[in-house]
Amino acid sequence: MKKISLQSKYSIVEHLTHTFIGRVRFNETDPLGIVWHGNYVDYFEEGREAFGRENGMCYLDIRDNGFVTPIVNVVVNYKKTLKYGEEYRVKTFLVQQRTAKITHLYEIYNEANELVCDGETTQVFVDLDGHMSLYEPEFYTEWKRKMKINNG
Amino acid sequence: MKKISLQSKYSIVEHLTHTFIGRVRFNETDPLGIVWHGNYVDYFEEGREAFGRENGMCYLDIRDNGFVTPIVNVVVNYKKTLKYGEEYRVKTFLVQQRTAKITHLYEIYNEANELVCDGETTQVFVDLDGHMSLYEPEFYTEWKRKMKINNG
Amino acid sequence: MKKISLQSKYSIVEHLTHTFIGRVRFNETDPLGIVWHGNYVDYFEEGREAFGRENGMCYLDIRDNGFVTPIVNVVVNYKKTLKYGEEYRVKTFLVQQRTAKITHLYEIYNEANELVCDGETTQVFVDLDGHMSLYEPEFYTEWKRKMKINNG
Amino acid sequence: MKKISLQSKYSIVEHLTHTFIGRVRFNETDPLGIVWHGNYVDYFEEGREAFGRENGMCYLDIRDNGFVTPIVNVVVNYKKTLKYGEEYRVKTFLVQQRTAKITHLYEIYNEANELVCDGETTQVFVDLDGHMSLYEPEFYTEWKRKMKINNG
Repeated sequence: MKKISLQSKYSIVEHLTHTFIGRVRFNETDPLGIVWHGNYVDYFEEGREAFGRENGMCYLDIRDNGFVTPIVNVVVNYKKTLKYGEEYRVKTFLVQQRTAKITHLYEIYNEANELVCDGETTQVFVDLDGHMSLYEPEFYTEWKRKMKINNG
Repeated sequence: MKKISLQSKYSIVEHLTHTFIGRVRFNETDPLGIVWHGNYVDYFEEGREAFGRENGMCYLDIRDNGFVTPIVNVVVNYKKTLKYGEEYRVKTFLVQQRTAKITHLYEIYNEANELVCDGETTQVFVDLDGHMSLYEPEFYTEWKRKMKINNG
Repeated sequence: MKKISLQSKYSIVEHLTHTFIGRVRFNETDPLGIVWHGNYVDYFEEGREAFGRENGMCYLDIRDNGFVTPIVNVVVNYKKTLKYGEEYRVKTFLVQQRTAKITHLYEIYNEANELVCDGETTQVFVDLDGHMSLYEPEFYTEWKRKMKINNG
Repeated sequence: MKKISLQSKYSIVEHLTHTFIGRVRFNETDPLGIVWHGNYVDYFEEGREAFGRENGMCYLDIRDNGFVTPIVNVVVNYKKTLKYGEEYRVKTFLVQQRTAKITHLYEIYNEANELVCDGETTQVFVDLDGHMSLYEPEFYTEWKRKMKINNG
């Protein structure tokens, strides 16, 4: 498998990698004619939610289990630019981890298959009373078992 | 008072006109260096909500009375452009009407006091069970009485 | 062909109708859990640009011919709502017209094939010196001839 | 001066700290009723550009000197949430550094003066031919001298 840029820090769940394909909207570009940097956070979310739909663990699945998973950290590293109308691919990776967190890594590629940006997001589990869970919720542990995800 | 462009069609509540001042954000502009046309719908909402806060009838006040007021129609007419960093003023007008609707008119001006765009939005009353109200809710009728708003 | 809601006012170019399929993003929804009304202007643009790519007349084609086509009017009529994760279809229609304008009509459908909203946009031709063209530019007239588009 | 959370890593230019005050827009909030996480990148930009306008070094000043300064890295750490209608303050700090980069730190506070999030952005200098500058451009060095900014 293609090495991913942040792999030294994290072990990823290799068999679950997902690729989302989108197209740059006109209103996502800025006066320089390129995608405004903040919109990559949208693209990460598109990738993460497509990953979740594919694997049965998206926002709605989590909510149906009595939790929300707010983002506590975002990192984006910009390498190249995307222009209006370009097709982009978001590769989303899930990180192996023991703690009650969900960390995804992302790589976005342009049509020429060049790495445009990479980054990561980390989420925590919060129950419907607003309390952050210090332990991984059972429904999530079961899902990991079903999906053959190691804790790393 | 300044005539407003759509006045032939509607009678407005003259004593409640409100002006909101904002500044164009970088990410609101497009590759032509001007505010992307869809963002004027945001500016209308900024104006409408500032009008509501000023007069005690914003989104949260309405919700506290057991209603939401979804938009059922938006019209925007573009005359000039706004650039990054420009200050804009949104003038918000409430329309006098008998029916169970809320209609606002808007005029947006640039720093040279030129009319950049105008438009309108119409909202209906929907209760928390999702039913559209055919009659004006009592809390709204009372508010109109308090604010000396005629039905036109 | 399905009758379109605004057809009484306009004659459309029936053989060029185009359907774009998108999916509602999480950050396009509001505290009511539905797509924020201003985002339908984005969806119209997605539809219009997909129509343009399909038929060889998108933003970049126009610009390569020395023109931009700013929006001068937008109308959106809301009928139903879209929720996070829903797939939507934007049907884009081109209006037959004699004047130096481009008018599109739009219909957005949900997964149950219900009409969620419809609307229209009108654009004018502006050359690279910023002057609005009173006559339809030659490249556009030629494109209409090639595409067998009547003036209505 | 208040200690800033990332101060261990960076030395900041203490005398240039700037505070921008904004108000959460309805369409910036998500189905959980709180500001969608990606919008904090907008708030950072609002803070950075207000800092730039205050100190004579915003996007337009840089462009007039023949450069653009694309973002190469963004980090956001989320501590609390902001709701619709809340006023927020963005404190923007400039980092002292020797290299041809501009790094800002940010802290966003709610009305109760609690830290909602912090983060950083890094920009590089790119000339109008698209080449990244390995050395700090002269206009920027002069500005630093004028503003009594040390290299740290």
